[in-house]
Amino acid sequence: MAEKSGIVFIGNKPPMSYVLAIITGLSASNVKEITLKARGRAITTAVDAAEITRSRFLKDLKISKITIGTEEMPPREGENRARMVSTMEITLTKE
Amino acid sequence: MAEKSGIVFIGNKPPMSYVLAIITGLSASNVKEITLKARGRAITTAVDAAEITRSRFLKDLKISKITIGTEEMPPREGENRARMVSTMEITLTKE
Repeated sequence: MAEKSGIVFIGNKPPMSYVLAIITGLSASNVKEITLKARGRAITTAVDAAEITRSRFLKDLKISKITIGTEEMPPREGENRARMVSTMEITLTKE
Repeated sequence: MAEKSGIVFIGNKPPMSYVLAIITGLSASNVKEITLKARGRAITTAVDAAEITRSRFLKDLKISKITIGTEEMPPREGENRARMVSTMEITLTKE
C-alpha cells in the first residue's frame, strides 16, 4: 500500500475543527503526513491547530516543514488591483 | 567586530512598521540576521512583514528558520485560567 499525504485547508472556523480534520486524516494507516495550508488571517489558526494537535492529542507528531510565501489574489469587487496575500504551509509527520 | 543578531517583536501595528524595523536592523554592517517574534494574531503580521521585506526591499534575504510553539499567558482580569497562546519565530539572514 503506497504511503499518502493529506492536505487540510485552513479557513475561518475555530482551530478545533481543523484539529479534528488532522487527527482523522492521520488515523488512516497509510497516511504518514498532513500539510496544513493557510492564507492571510487563517495563518494564526493553522499554527493554533498544529500546536493543539501536538500538545493535547498526538504527542509524537513532528513538525517536519514550515514554509511561508505570497500569493496574488484577484481584486475584490469594485477594486481594480490584485492583492498580495501571505501564505503558510505546516507539514506534520507521524513517527 | 563580533556578528550580532537582532530581534524584532511583532505587535498589532501595520506590517510596514515592522518592515522598516527589519531593514533598519539589518543595515548595521555587523548584523547578519534578524528574528521576528510574534504571538497570537500578530503571527499573520510577522509573515506579512517577512514577505514584504523579501519581495520588495531586500531580495537576497533568506528565511533561515521558522519555528512555532505555545506559551502560557497569565489569565485576563476577571478570568482565572491561564491561556495558551501560539507563538512563531522567523529568522531572516543576509547573504
